Amino acid sequence: MKILFIQTGGTIDKDYPLLTRGYPFEITEPAVQRILENINPAFDFEILPLLQKDSLDLTEEDREKILQACIDSAVNKIIITHGTDTIIETAQKLSQVKDKVIILTGAMRPERFSNSDAGFNIGVAIGAINVLDNGIYIAMNGKIFDYQKVARDSETGKFLEI
Amino acid sequence: MKILFIQTGGTIDKDYPLLTRGYPFEITEPAVQRILENINPAFDFEILPLLQKDSLDLTEEDREKILQACIDSAVNKIIITHGTDTIIETAQKLSQVKDKVIILTGAMRPERFSNSDAGFNIGVAIGAINVLDNGIYIAMNGKIFDYQKVARDSETGKFLEI
Amino acid sequence: MKILFIQTGGTIDKDYPLLTRGYPFEITEPAVQRILENINPAFDFEILPLLQKDSLDLTEEDREKILQACIDSAVNKIIITHGTDTIIETAQKLSQVKDKVIILTGAMRPERFSNSDAGFNIGVAIGAINVLDNGIYIAMNGKIFDYQKVARDSETGKFLEI
Amino acid sequence: MKILFIQTGGTIDKDYPLLTRGYPFEITEPAVQRILENINPAFDFEILPLLQKDSLDLTEEDREKILQACIDSAVNKIIITHGTDTIIETAQKLSQVKDKVIILTGAMRPERFSNSDAGFNIGVAIGAINVLDNGIYIAMNGKIFDYQKVARDSETGKFLEI
Repeated sequence: MKILFIQTGGTIDKDYPLLTRGYPFEITEPAVQRILENINPAFDFEILPLLQKDSLDLTEEDREKILQACIDSAVNKIIITHGTDTIIETAQKLSQVKDKVIILTGAMRPERFSNSDAGFNIGVAIGAINVLDNGIYIAMNGKIFDYQKVARDSETGKFLEI
Repeated sequence: MKILFIQTGGTIDKDYPLLTRGYPFEITEPAVQRILENINPAFDFEILPLLQKDSLDLTEEDREKILQACIDSAVNKIIITHGTDTIIETAQKLSQVKDKVIILTGAMRPERFSNSDAGFNIGVAIGAINVLDNGIYIAMNGKIFDYQKVARDSETGKFLEI
Repeated sequence: MKILFIQTGGTIDKDYPLLTRGYPFEITEPAVQRILENINPAFDFEILPLLQKDSLDLTEEDREKILQACIDSAVNKIIITHGTDTIIETAQKLSQVKDKVIILTGAMRPERFSNSDAGFNIGVAIGAINVLDNGIYIAMNGKIFDYQKVARDSETGKFLEI
Repeated sequence: MKILFIQTGGTIDKDYPLLTRGYPFEITEPAVQRILENINPAFDFEILPLLQKDSLDLTEEDREKILQACIDSAVNKIIITHGTDTIIETAQKLSQVKDKVIILTGAMRPERFSNSDAGFNIGVAIGAINVLDNGIYIAMNGKIFDYQKVARDSETGKFLEI
């Protein structure tokens, strides 16, 4: 089994700069790399650091890039790490890809945090991608959602089936 | 979606006693409880703390208990946390259960460890259980194995498809 | 031994909001509280959540508040958690306090981070406050500096004796 | 400032072996090394991995080794990481060393644990060693104890001044 991980950014990757005068958190290397280094994977993988943006900042052009990366991929199992705020929009953009399994996931707390949900969420995506048929999915809060049947509760932030 | 988590013990649950003169690590509460408290699950679940043993210490009687708990379960999605040393043996014992999805998983490092694989492995099992048909499976190292098609590399400790 | 901990903010306390659309990191409860809950202290303490600001945003009025809190304190051992960017300025403001031991410290990475220096730095301050005579000090990078004899390397961010 | 860290073992260093069939926790590399790698020290140091034993297993011969290492040290600030069960005994053995500051510390939970007190305790020892006069001390629970004036509460495990 081979999986391509595409980094687009989001909370999952947010880190704190080591310099002085550091106000914001920065998105740097893909958190998924640190997670995979730790779990001794029995599958092959590649990591493509495509974008490093908060998902509120993704433009139509960025979504085109993500789509193109999926189309061009020789690997047919793709996990995209993404900010949770506009993850459903990006999933909708990818609906034209019919010959791959694509799962989008992210995290509510950066992987750097000791109480992060990042490792768990990546695990959920990897567990599901072992089994799923071709299609576009979102993995959050331990559930696998078809991209057309998911919405987000604006109060709790939780993803739900619709 | 509802999942029953059955605790049998193993490295995943190993903790350090808070007393003086503490030699060994103890297995106490199910680590899966701490993991689920942290990830805001979009599914219902129950946790059954059935056994708290290193898997090298499981007896035939213990495996009968695990089998009976699976048979008796009203919930048809079951994740069993288990020591990795004899996880395949227990999976084989469960082969007679035909009407449920049962995934056995564990961890190489206790959930208490800052670099544990526990949260990731539980995530893999939960991701897969969203999708799998009835059967008995093992989830380790990011892969889902049919219980009849898995072995363990005695040198590296990694699980592989056979 | 009794210690008063005064929270003023800084990286040490930075956390991630649990809501959607969360851009910035927030300063909420004092991180020192979480640290002390974990180490079974053999001393008494109070925590005063005075300010929750990045130290670049501290005003002269804020520094007056910090000074007043130190003067008013019945406890004569005080540890102030503070952003590292202007920690020396605040220390200089406190020079008029002659009858107490005051140590200012902070962290380069939030206490929420799994690789944070927060717990260590608080430990350094507490270890020193067991022993120090009255005066104003900064504890960073494992060293105790007299407030008049410390500067910060603008490239590496490390504190050094001058 | 230069500090010599001497590893003797104890809970602080306990780790989990990566092999199969791993019952016990092992003491391997000194945890203090991992802690120091993380905090950007403004002091020089050496680490001497002298022993790797649970402190209940230390023999008179082992304590002689520890004493000799302290006597032979060219560095006059020494921090010894040690199991908490017999830390007072070892401190008493070192009482003949008059020309150095020696602080013994350890941890109730391994440094590998996400909720470990190890980093904090090492911090307390380092903070105090910046300031203390020659003598033998124990640093636990945030307090610095003269080796002749400390005992341990056998129920709570906490160290107290006597």
